[in-house]
Amino acid sequence: MEADAVMIMDTLGRQAKAAAKAMRMADSKVKNDALMLAASWIRRESQEIISANVLDMKAADENGLDDAMKDRLLLNGDRIDAMAEGLAQIAALADPVGEIDHLRYRPSGIQVGHMRVPLGVIGIIYESRPNVTADAAGLCLKSGNAAILRGGSEAIHSNRAIAACLRRALVDSGLPQNAVQLVDSTDRALVGALLKSEQYVDVIIPRGGKSLIERVAAESRVPVIKHLDGICHVYIDASAKPAMALNIAVNAKTHRYGVCNAMETLLIHQAVHADVVCAVIQAMLDKGVEVRGCERTRAVCEGMDVKVAADEDWATEYLSPVLSVRIMDSLDAAVDHIAEYSSGHTESIVTENYEAGQRFLREVDSSSVMWNASTRFADGFEYGLGAEIGISTDRLHVRGPVGLEGLTSQKWIVLGNGQVRS
Amino acid sequence: MEADAVMIMDTLGRQAKAAAKAMRMADSKVKNDALMLAASWIRRESQEIISANVLDMKAADENGLDDAMKDRLLLNGDRIDAMAEGLAQIAALADPVGEIDHLRYRPSGIQVGHMRVPLGVIGIIYESRPNVTADAAGLCLKSGNAAILRGGSEAIHSNRAIAACLRRALVDSGLPQNAVQLVDSTDRALVGALLKSEQYVDVIIPRGGKSLIERVAAESRVPVIKHLDGICHVYIDASAKPAMALNIAVNAKTHRYGVCNAMETLLIHQAVHADVVCAVIQAMLDKGVEVRGCERTRAVCEGMDVKVAADEDWATEYLSPVLSVRIMDSLDAAVDHIAEYSSGHTESIVTENYEAGQRFLREVDSSSVMWNASTRFADGFEYGLGAEIGISTDRLHVRGPVGLEGLTSQKWIVLGNGQVRS
Repeated sequence: MEADAVMIMDTLGRQAKAAAKAMRMADSKVKNDALMLAASWIRRESQEIISANVLDMKAADENGLDDAMKDRLLLNGDRIDAMAEGLAQIAALADPVGEIDHLRYRPSGIQVGHMRVPLGVIGIIYESRPNVTADAAGLCLKSGNAAILRGGSEAIHSNRAIAACLRRALVDSGLPQNAVQLVDSTDRALVGALLKSEQYVDVIIPRGGKSLIERVAAESRVPVIKHLDGICHVYIDASAKPAMALNIAVNAKTHRYGVCNAMETLLIHQAVHADVVCAVIQAMLDKGVEVRGCERTRAVCEGMDVKVAADEDWATEYLSPVLSVRIMDSLDAAVDHIAEYSSGHTESIVTENYEAGQRFLREVDSSSVMWNASTRFADGFEYGLGAEIGISTDRLHVRGPVGLEGLTSQKWIVLGNGQVRS
Repeated sequence: MEADAVMIMDTLGRQAKAAAKAMRMADSKVKNDALMLAASWIRRESQEIISANVLDMKAADENGLDDAMKDRLLLNGDRIDAMAEGLAQIAALADPVGEIDHLRYRPSGIQVGHMRVPLGVIGIIYESRPNVTADAAGLCLKSGNAAILRGGSEAIHSNRAIAACLRRALVDSGLPQNAVQLVDSTDRALVGALLKSEQYVDVIIPRGGKSLIERVAAESRVPVIKHLDGICHVYIDASAKPAMALNIAVNAKTHRYGVCNAMETLLIHQAVHADVVCAVIQAMLDKGVEVRGCERTRAVCEGMDVKVAADEDWATEYLSPVLSVRIMDSLDAAVDHIAEYSSGHTESIVTENYEAGQRFLREVDSSSVMWNASTRFADGFEYGLGAEIGISTDRLHVRGPVGLEGLTSQKWIVLGNGQVRS
């Protein structure tokens, strides 16, 4: 079994590497044609894709998957349309490959600069949502990489149907079909083999729940761009505008609950007026959010339904209508709290005070740090990346939302007219 | 023993992480002061450092180290001066930390940009040369990181004396002395423990021979920026200027032999005139270089002392006065040869032909790709980085010479005036 997995992955890896060589040099136009063709194949084959998805949904019922998982798994006309539209949007983005920047003369007379180049072969390991098959493949294709896709076994039929559309589009546009390969088996040993394919695969991007990502990080011999949890904070400073603070806090918590850039803990400076604190908490309660406060919060909001926050609350990503609230002595205390409990995803300060805002931007060490804006903006589309393949909570290579540029690297180029070193 | 190593490394890691927090926020001026102080401590303590080095040199004799290793190990007045001067040069570089770029408005009204931030804790594992202690610590300090230095056991006394100067300078300037820590033991288990300190260490940079780097890459749980061998190529195209081709080839091979950016294989287009081919080879022979040619090369240079190149020659990093030469049918064949045998370090084309040069720049996938310049320019100083901690042959995070910027990452910053997501 293990040996089989290694052999299968070896073949996929070798094919991907060969495809990556052609992809690296592919013209923007050819890549865009392939993306547009993939979009039209997905639209044309939507009945096939839905039939495949029906098989996955049936298996999901039989295996007793919960409703949230089934919702993520489900494909319908609208979702298939959105997938095709996503590919068209990727086609419309600027091609990062080959871009040269900072070309400058050196005292030796040579010109030195950077050229943006693809990473090579990218392994994507993901769960449930079949649309990741199209999104991830599209981003890898546009950035000149080859993709090895390993979706969840619960979505194998849907993923197969979608990947077939992409591969057909690659062939139609003269690109190697192995630039997109789906690991067409539910054997878990294949994940292990993929994580050990360092001779073929340049980076692994896991997308899914915490346990998947931790397994990948622990086992992988290939570098990983990983996205762990989002324990995001909003800090209402002493000099925040009350209405703005209320708006941002409510939006950060209640705009969507199950997303990684939702606020999980609200920190409030002790000088913020009790009326403001209570108004924010009342707004949360009105939205049906369970509020868990520190002792001071509960004292300030006496008579309101504020539960007791336990220590583990500060370290919890609820992903649900629950919010922990803590009143802080100072900006320093807030920064320290964030340093201790944040997952390094996204934090926001609400303040009109220049020094407080500047310090927060500099001192908070998260992939996104905001001033007077909702944490919900931490997103590839909102940042102008056009699309995202994930949000990196790592420090190396890329932090925060990862778009096309995150799937590339830079090589040095040197232009001379005969210079030698003396 | 193993358990001891883990405990020792745990302490060093915890201390480094605490120091990194202070270093991340340190002002440029304070960091520069510390670097200048370290430079003057190194000058003031040069007798102490030389005495320590004498102990290492004695042990080297006893352990039968070869002359090349002993030369790398040796410290004298000039070398100590160069170390101090290196730190002063790092102080003079621009501070990358806190630099904000590409701040731009998005349709939502938020401004989005990048702020450059330190990586955190950097582990450096190196061999022989004690000057790496000062260079690496200086670069980590300036880029706002904390360093854990693990030098070779053969240089332990020298490294200890140098690290002491750096730590004194940190204290004198009000920075945490644990921003620079030397693993003060020759126990090899400590390297293993360092490679597994992923909870404390953000990146490992190995500097040394191939076996060290391969061990680090194989064992490390921490991301590695690695520098493998340099099998560098110069390709003389059909339309190269003969005199320029000769100059570049001779410089790339003979300027220094033992360096990673020296040429190891010379590729020549078949249309290059036999007189030019022979002139280049004669120049190499005149410099005492052993030339190993393909059959066509040997036929073109009949009567000259050209040895037979075996297949393994194309894959060999000689680091010595040996050169392999191959005549190629075409640019495509040269690009393919490089794809197959290059280590992805540095390659250069010599040509006056625009299309050939452009294609070479785009199609060759190495960390530095050059047009009409000697491969010897692949160097942090020559590229304007001011200093380098190594040359990355990896694809992720940073490729080619790694300077201060390579020791940093970027976080996103968002400036708003109350924006929420709708």
